[in-house]
Amino acid sequence: MKLAILGSTGSIGRQTLSIISETVKVTGLSCMSNVERLYQQYCQFKPQWLHIGDVSKYDELKALVNDTAVTITAGEEELVAFSANCDYDILLTSIVGSVGLLPTIAAVKRAKRIALANKETLVVYGEKIMQLAEQYGAEIIPVDSEHSAIFQSLQGNDYKAIEKLILTATGGPFLGRTKKQLHDVKAETALKHPKWQMGKKISIDSATLMNKGLEVIEARWLFDVPREDIDVVVHPECIIHSLVQYCDGSVIAQLGLQDMQLPIHYALYYPKRKPTALKRLSLSDIGTLNFYKPDMATFPCLGLAYQALKMGGTAPCVLNAANEVLVQLFLDGKIGFYDIPNGIEKALMKFDIVQNYSLDDVVACDAAVRRFVTML
Amino acid sequence: MKLAILGSTGSIGRQTLSIISETVKVTGLSCMSNVERLYQQYCQFKPQWLHIGDVSKYDELKALVNDTAVTITAGEEELVAFSANCDYDILLTSIVGSVGLLPTIAAVKRAKRIALANKETLVVYGEKIMQLAEQYGAEIIPVDSEHSAIFQSLQGNDYKAIEKLILTATGGPFLGRTKKQLHDVKAETALKHPKWQMGKKISIDSATLMNKGLEVIEARWLFDVPREDIDVVVHPECIIHSLVQYCDGSVIAQLGLQDMQLPIHYALYYPKRKPTALKRLSLSDIGTLNFYKPDMATFPCLGLAYQALKMGGTAPCVLNAANEVLVQLFLDGKIGFYDIPNGIEKALMKFDIVQNYSLDDVVACDAAVRRFVTML
Repeated sequence: MKLAILGSTGSIGRQTLSIISETVKVTGLSCMSNVERLYQQYCQFKPQWLHIGDVSKYDELKALVNDTAVTITAGEEELVAFSANCDYDILLTSIVGSVGLLPTIAAVKRAKRIALANKETLVVYGEKIMQLAEQYGAEIIPVDSEHSAIFQSLQGNDYKAIEKLILTATGGPFLGRTKKQLHDVKAETALKHPKWQMGKKISIDSATLMNKGLEVIEARWLFDVPREDIDVVVHPECIIHSLVQYCDGSVIAQLGLQDMQLPIHYALYYPKRKPTALKRLSLSDIGTLNFYKPDMATFPCLGLAYQALKMGGTAPCVLNAANEVLVQLFLDGKIGFYDIPNGIEKALMKFDIVQNYSLDDVVACDAAVRRFVTML
Repeated sequence: MKLAILGSTGSIGRQTLSIISETVKVTGLSCMSNVERLYQQYCQFKPQWLHIGDVSKYDELKALVNDTAVTITAGEEELVAFSANCDYDILLTSIVGSVGLLPTIAAVKRAKRIALANKETLVVYGEKIMQLAEQYGAEIIPVDSEHSAIFQSLQGNDYKAIEKLILTATGGPFLGRTKKQLHDVKAETALKHPKWQMGKKISIDSATLMNKGLEVIEARWLFDVPREDIDVVVHPECIIHSLVQYCDGSVIAQLGLQDMQLPIHYALYYPKRKPTALKRLSLSDIGTLNFYKPDMATFPCLGLAYQALKMGGTAPCVLNAANEVLVQLFLDGKIGFYDIPNGIEKALMKFDIVQNYSLDDVVACDAAVRRFVTML
């Protein structure tokens, strides 16, 4: 099996390279700017194609590799060429941001399997990408733990029998806090996530519950389930990774210890399950699992995500772009915690939503929203 | 779809008749002795064949029905004829006791679907019945909630990828008690089961954890998983009905409110899921799920079931027969709570285990063990 990775030096990329068996041949690796790690990975896996996003690092990478048999490219446009031409069976899109969109489309058009870990692809273009995947016969296998849990819980069942998808949420670092307590909260406090070690952006998204809101949008398109039938339940222990409720009332769930390697592994070898040495779950060792309704008043971002789905069209793109900028401003200490949902709400009201949107509409919308929110 | 039921007037039989849709034609009904209810069911569903176990009730039933177009039979031997000749696609075996064994074999030899709710078939003859089912191409679909949960959690997966089956147990009415506290406990106390309204025999089995022990044996044969790979976890809320741990470390589980109608429904319509109006599970309403290791010292029956599996051959038959007699003696106030496991242990030591057993061996073993235990 031939594997190419977009974002190979990031957390998901590195974990993937650490668990693949000898039957997997790594044919292409790309990263944003970490030349040293990319070169290390090159030395270990000897892919035919290396790509670096940061054009200014191209010469350094080329000099390090020093082998004309290896294709080396740089820059955003060349990443699409990588995706469109590199020889692979599975493309893991563990790249962050909307830069993942065009390369994913290129892989879809080649009818490849996409192990999807790039949220933006589904959030801003999910409806279209799933249509394209069906049209071209590409397989989209989610790598995110919640969506992988749903995907696993759907095996052997008819999607038409789905009554409800239930996404579990840790509740983030501010679970149980009041609006008043959170009013003046700082980014440092939010970055102490109880369960997962994550990047800064996703840690803030976890604290605002926007992370779960974006996952609701992803699930909407990934599994073709209307937003009314997607629920969120807060489950701080993070053992049940998500659930599917069927029309007969039966609920199927996937459980496990928190380890991204499991959903990565599943996406690579699906529909087979191959042995891993990952630590096993023991429910009696865990002892207790708790469940709460999400506090939508204290964490308005989750409700805003549902609202964006209801508005349809480019509204999720507005939500996502506004959120990205506002989270960065919050991280920089320039705005408060509730300025994130307030700014998103303003953006959702400000912009005309394009219903029958094209890729160009999404790109234009994304840029316009970022400009608008930066100037709020 | 044509359905015949062994044990139609019992709890499972009645619940089945209450949930079937108009597409199900009931072709045969049998019960032990409840003529009135069987006649009511006849009036509602107009099956072609009625059977009553108690021969002395035959004339009464015949007079009530008063229709020569309906086949009416009585007695144990005729029940095999019912199973072998009645026109059905699915046979629900919701009959209690080893009397269910021969009729089940008759259905297996006709390559029918058996919705199996007769524990004894799997406990005393599971190895052989599953071999026969494979040989004749019969489908055995479990109706028991734990085994249905496992069966549902296995859909879309390769049985070879099973690493462990995890059966959940309520822990019974004596969960948390010590051996000393239980020494003089009476049957009345044991009959107050915290979760399910059940018959007396199964309530005592629940209190001793023998119920779970028998389920371990059933699971051993139903899913062809060695006993070492079958675990029991105590889960008093009874929401997760059982789980499958796969070789990649992922765990799939089936959850739901406690309602036997769900597994019955699944067994009838499998592999489809058809809508039901059953109450839905809300994890946030439940709030907390707890899990404990079973207390094998206080509840030795569970360990005895594993021991019987280890001994193999007719040992589970010895265990089951001894347990049935001893539970009745306990219910009659003639022996104490710990005389149940003590008597079973004596029986397991006393009898020579036949490894390559036939049906005759099982029948002879069952009778001999009952005689022995009665005289303990």
